[in-house]
Amino acid sequence: MSDKNISAILYSKGDLRLEERDIPTPGKGEVQVSIHSVGICGSDVHYWTHGAIGDFIVKAPMVLGHESSGIVTALGEGVKHLKVGDRVALEPGVPCRACDYCKTGRYNLCPDVEFHATPPYHGTLARLITHAADFCFKLPDHVSFEEGALLEPLSVGIHACKRAGVTVGDNVLICGAGPIGLVNLLTAKAMGAATVCVTDIDEGRLKVAKTLGANHTVLVTSRDAKALASQVKECMDGKIDITIECSGAESSIQLGIFATKSGGVLVLVGLGPAEVKLPIVDAAVREVDIRGIFRYCNTYPTALAMVASGAVNVKPLVTHHFALEKTLDAFETARTGAGGAIKVVIDCFRK
Amino acid sequence: MSDKNISAILYSKGDLRLEERDIPTPGKGEVQVSIHSVGICGSDVHYWTHGAIGDFIVKAPMVLGHESSGIVTALGEGVKHLKVGDRVALEPGVPCRACDYCKTGRYNLCPDVEFHATPPYHGTLARLITHAADFCFKLPDHVSFEEGALLEPLSVGIHACKRAGVTVGDNVLICGAGPIGLVNLLTAKAMGAATVCVTDIDEGRLKVAKTLGANHTVLVTSRDAKALASQVKECMDGKIDITIECSGAESSIQLGIFATKSGGVLVLVGLGPAEVKLPIVDAAVREVDIRGIFRYCNTYPTALAMVASGAVNVKPLVTHHFALEKTLDAFETARTGAGGAIKVVIDCFRK
Amino acid sequence: MSDKNISAILYSKGDLRLEERDIPTPGKGEVQVSIHSVGICGSDVHYWTHGAIGDFIVKAPMVLGHESSGIVTALGEGVKHLKVGDRVALEPGVPCRACDYCKTGRYNLCPDVEFHATPPYHGTLARLITHAADFCFKLPDHVSFEEGALLEPLSVGIHACKRAGVTVGDNVLICGAGPIGLVNLLTAKAMGAATVCVTDIDEGRLKVAKTLGANHTVLVTSRDAKALASQVKECMDGKIDITIECSGAESSIQLGIFATKSGGVLVLVGLGPAEVKLPIVDAAVREVDIRGIFRYCNTYPTALAMVASGAVNVKPLVTHHFALEKTLDAFETARTGAGGAIKVVIDCFRK
Amino acid sequence: MSDKNISAILYSKGDLRLEERDIPTPGKGEVQVSIHSVGICGSDVHYWTHGAIGDFIVKAPMVLGHESSGIVTALGEGVKHLKVGDRVALEPGVPCRACDYCKTGRYNLCPDVEFHATPPYHGTLARLITHAADFCFKLPDHVSFEEGALLEPLSVGIHACKRAGVTVGDNVLICGAGPIGLVNLLTAKAMGAATVCVTDIDEGRLKVAKTLGANHTVLVTSRDAKALASQVKECMDGKIDITIECSGAESSIQLGIFATKSGGVLVLVGLGPAEVKLPIVDAAVREVDIRGIFRYCNTYPTALAMVASGAVNVKPLVTHHFALEKTLDAFETARTGAGGAIKVVIDCFRK
Repeated sequence: MSDKNISAILYSKGDLRLEERDIPTPGKGEVQVSIHSVGICGSDVHYWTHGAIGDFIVKAPMVLGHESSGIVTALGEGVKHLKVGDRVALEPGVPCRACDYCKTGRYNLCPDVEFHATPPYHGTLARLITHAADFCFKLPDHVSFEEGALLEPLSVGIHACKRAGVTVGDNVLICGAGPIGLVNLLTAKAMGAATVCVTDIDEGRLKVAKTLGANHTVLVTSRDAKALASQVKECMDGKIDITIECSGAESSIQLGIFATKSGGVLVLVGLGPAEVKLPIVDAAVREVDIRGIFRYCNTYPTALAMVASGAVNVKPLVTHHFALEKTLDAFETARTGAGGAIKVVIDCFRK
Repeated sequence: MSDKNISAILYSKGDLRLEERDIPTPGKGEVQVSIHSVGICGSDVHYWTHGAIGDFIVKAPMVLGHESSGIVTALGEGVKHLKVGDRVALEPGVPCRACDYCKTGRYNLCPDVEFHATPPYHGTLARLITHAADFCFKLPDHVSFEEGALLEPLSVGIHACKRAGVTVGDNVLICGAGPIGLVNLLTAKAMGAATVCVTDIDEGRLKVAKTLGANHTVLVTSRDAKALASQVKECMDGKIDITIECSGAESSIQLGIFATKSGGVLVLVGLGPAEVKLPIVDAAVREVDIRGIFRYCNTYPTALAMVASGAVNVKPLVTHHFALEKTLDAFETARTGAGGAIKVVIDCFRK
Repeated sequence: MSDKNISAILYSKGDLRLEERDIPTPGKGEVQVSIHSVGICGSDVHYWTHGAIGDFIVKAPMVLGHESSGIVTALGEGVKHLKVGDRVALEPGVPCRACDYCKTGRYNLCPDVEFHATPPYHGTLARLITHAADFCFKLPDHVSFEEGALLEPLSVGIHACKRAGVTVGDNVLICGAGPIGLVNLLTAKAMGAATVCVTDIDEGRLKVAKTLGANHTVLVTSRDAKALASQVKECMDGKIDITIECSGAESSIQLGIFATKSGGVLVLVGLGPAEVKLPIVDAAVREVDIRGIFRYCNTYPTALAMVASGAVNVKPLVTHHFALEKTLDAFETARTGAGGAIKVVIDCFRK
Repeated sequence: MSDKNISAILYSKGDLRLEERDIPTPGKGEVQVSIHSVGICGSDVHYWTHGAIGDFIVKAPMVLGHESSGIVTALGEGVKHLKVGDRVALEPGVPCRACDYCKTGRYNLCPDVEFHATPPYHGTLARLITHAADFCFKLPDHVSFEEGALLEPLSVGIHACKRAGVTVGDNVLICGAGPIGLVNLLTAKAMGAATVCVTDIDEGRLKVAKTLGANHTVLVTSRDAKALASQVKECMDGKIDITIECSGAESSIQLGIFATKSGGVLVLVGLGPAEVKLPIVDAAVREVDIRGIFRYCNTYPTALAMVASGAVNVKPLVTHHFALEKTLDAFETARTGAGGAIKVVIDCFRK
């Protein structure tokens, strides 16, 4: 195999191959990017192990990866704000720019968004890709490629915390201490949350949450949502303004309803079974608002400003590095969480 | 029985009696009101037929009624903005004025609110009651007592539509065409909704909705929420910005999720079973926000302005009148809906 | 002169000519439109009489006109939601779709917007033009071309009233009863305003405002803002939640500050001298927010829904019609307001 | 003079005396507080040096001081959430609890608020005072009395930053580095502001701002607002989302308009001349919103949570301490700013 543009291509469930692909030429308003770092997300692993996520089914070979940064290597027509050699983070979803959602600032809901590594669109686990220039964000010198790649999961935290309306002095409950729970923890703290409690079924993860700033942690050992609610309310002095649910578990969503104060907000980030049983009257009569999120929009400038200013430190999230050639090892580590893996990063540049 | 202050008192489930009570004296900041009109609400009927609503249990004799208007007959200490003879509408819930909810403008969530005809607080089905003066709203001459009483259910519509964020040009689905569905219809229209579709299981109610301004109506004949969603979306050209659920039925809440556009809002007004099965992933990934309401706050000035300016006409809602002495007949009519009863009003003044 | 594409071209201050131009071909994502109706705006007249508006200077010949509707006559590549023969209203400003303003839903602030008849971009006073397809809005059969053209000024009213947060029960003061004051009046009423007071220096205009729904009118005969504030507060019972200033006069902006209740909003729509003297401490300590507007964004779907549903009737605004060949007469009428001219419409189709 | 309740009483301009007053008894819902720490505010000094602030004129002897903390020494009727011995911070303004402003959560605009040391209401520079119990906030053990007193100026920062909508990643300009500018700096940082630039005419103050976290400082040496705007925009890379004006100077408000990005917000905190000349068209057409503040509301729980959680450190603001008996020296220090005085605190307890 030559190595002009080696790429990690998922052919179908369980069939992930490294193959050479043509070098792409940037079109109007696009840039060509030499990819440097790509974080592996739970969705990448899920496509690999299941061949699909919900209605998104891998029907044709698809390059994986969507948490990315790299170096601009060529400019398409009309690109002005970037130049060759710029280090950039890549926001992975490019919307249609013409529908009501795009025009009203909620482009994450655009039905025609083209998102890296969501069928049928290719991702970024490759040497070279092309991307819309305005979805590439120039990194200051002191922000690393790794941090650039992590702006993607951080964006999920920002979108969730903004939808929740987290602000200074708030008391926040975060259910789930995986990578998404942790970026929500970091974001909530950066927005001024006074106290954050994190729950998980895994003690190791809770330790990480503590290290990253959680004021309280609660180990989940049962599915009794009311009992759990009592437990978290006790350590939070009864005051939970906002719950950010990142596990998707039915009992955890129920916990979110029971634990959140009247007039508070429950944000659903984690996705579990399509249908769940909810104590909806309790939420309704206490005006606990329930808001989901779909990816994010307009978060990259914020995420970059947070990381660049030092308001948020995402580096501790990265526990493992692999070369692009070792992609399968990287996915196996991400899948099993071996060695306390939180975020596994693949280095895509030719060494 | 003398008739100084005849009152409709619920002793327990099914045991509603007309009895003489002492004439109350207004305390500091209170007024004494000679009640004129009281609308019967579903909750009044429910206390009568069940002796309780959820955790609110009638343990001691309680005067019913909370949709009220009357004439000020005496002033307590310090009352300045009202005078004897003023015609007023009564907002039925008086909060503690000191908790965080009271201070932040969401006093409907005050845990210590004293609400007419919610145990253990007496209601207004009487000749004379006392009430906090600042929760009495002076009616202009051209607004009738009946309209004054109906500011209460109208307030539910205003609170729901404001929580939903209804604004000009919106397309709104209202599930349920009982009195609460109808006040939501009137309010949504007054706020500029372009198209309103109303659903119900009763054809007669849908006819009333049509008369009051519904652009479309859909008769609900199944519990298949997806099929219902297709039906309402068809008559609304696929565009439903907001759904206001007023039935409380599980399938109707599910309909609300399926039918509302991505990025839209589902407001829960109707209350049904404590737990329901919901397609929560569909709501979450399409960012359909779910918001409940508990009564209302700060709606009386708005409701009065709407009725006084003619923006809303609540008169067609009133189908029946009874004298206070005929309270049991009134409740029976409200309970059965006999004679196409929508809103039954009891005249409490001595004729 | 042949008549393939006769157009009204402003060469410089005072020099407006009818000339033949090439027939434009729609590019990717564009449509060709046979223009039917174009309303004349104050800005069109101002370019004609002054050759400039602020920093926008007519340096090269420019077609005037930006309140437009017409019939789709050809489709560019990729256009799917329109077909030849569709009747459409044209939103005149097409933004860059890539900057932060475009992505966050405030595309009216896009620094690279191309807006009809704002130098150096041509307008629509022609037989045929091309335009971005997604800024063309299909008119239902029962909405006339004239109404389609008037969606543009109506959009200004919608944007102003939405920025003001007008909602049901509000009491609104509108300063200025020209076309923009009047569309604000119509919009405020459609959004549920309980009472609207309109001021102007011209009694004739106030009569029109009365006809269109103003509850009160005040003839402005002095520049004493405090005295004026007393006057409008008297007829509004002291309650002005929102002021929408459409005159641009210094004394009228001052009036807006003095008249608006504490915690209210003053929206600046009219533009006058670059610098004005303002009682800013009075605004600040009473938390009267001051918000300007620049054109509008995301208003066309709303404006169309309002007109199509009958919530707003813009037809009374149109007082005069002229054929495209009589453009100079039309501008003269618009300039002088002769014959009680409010909105002058030019019919651009070949008769 | 005995010392049962020595108090610092302003008789008239320049006439501040220490005198014995009766010990007050707490009424219903009140507590008696033994005052511990009182910060001196610019308004206290202004009353002392001028005998008035605007329309608020000292006509009868008035105890000064409104930034206070102390120990509960007696409970009035009905007080449940506090007990004798509790250490508390005192929110100084008690509103009427019955007007529209109180009911909608904007009680700072209540026309009948009784605010410490605002004529005709007494302040807290005394041994013992009484206060509404629900406006006393219990301090955790690790929060000092001094910090408790400083919740008051911090509240101004919170109210201003919340009105501005400061959130994570924002770039903020703060004009003025006095105590109010500094609490805004601390608050903006705690809310996640990425970059904060502070301006002042005093180099020493700017050094303090740097110490407290300002990323950039600009020494103001001219009144040319456009030139100043260029200067601050240069050091902020052109991006200023929000300006918080704390000086009240005309040129500084103008700077705030010119410097803030289109679509941004200018909050007016500082108060200067009643009328100023403003480039209002520039603000209007760029949709730069102008919002004033009046004191604050609902900030004490937030301020306390921020200080208690360590999100904000207000201790560096306190530069001087004086005993109550030395009140005149304290005021002189606060007036002149001698010794680099930022916040002067008076210890009111009997030593």
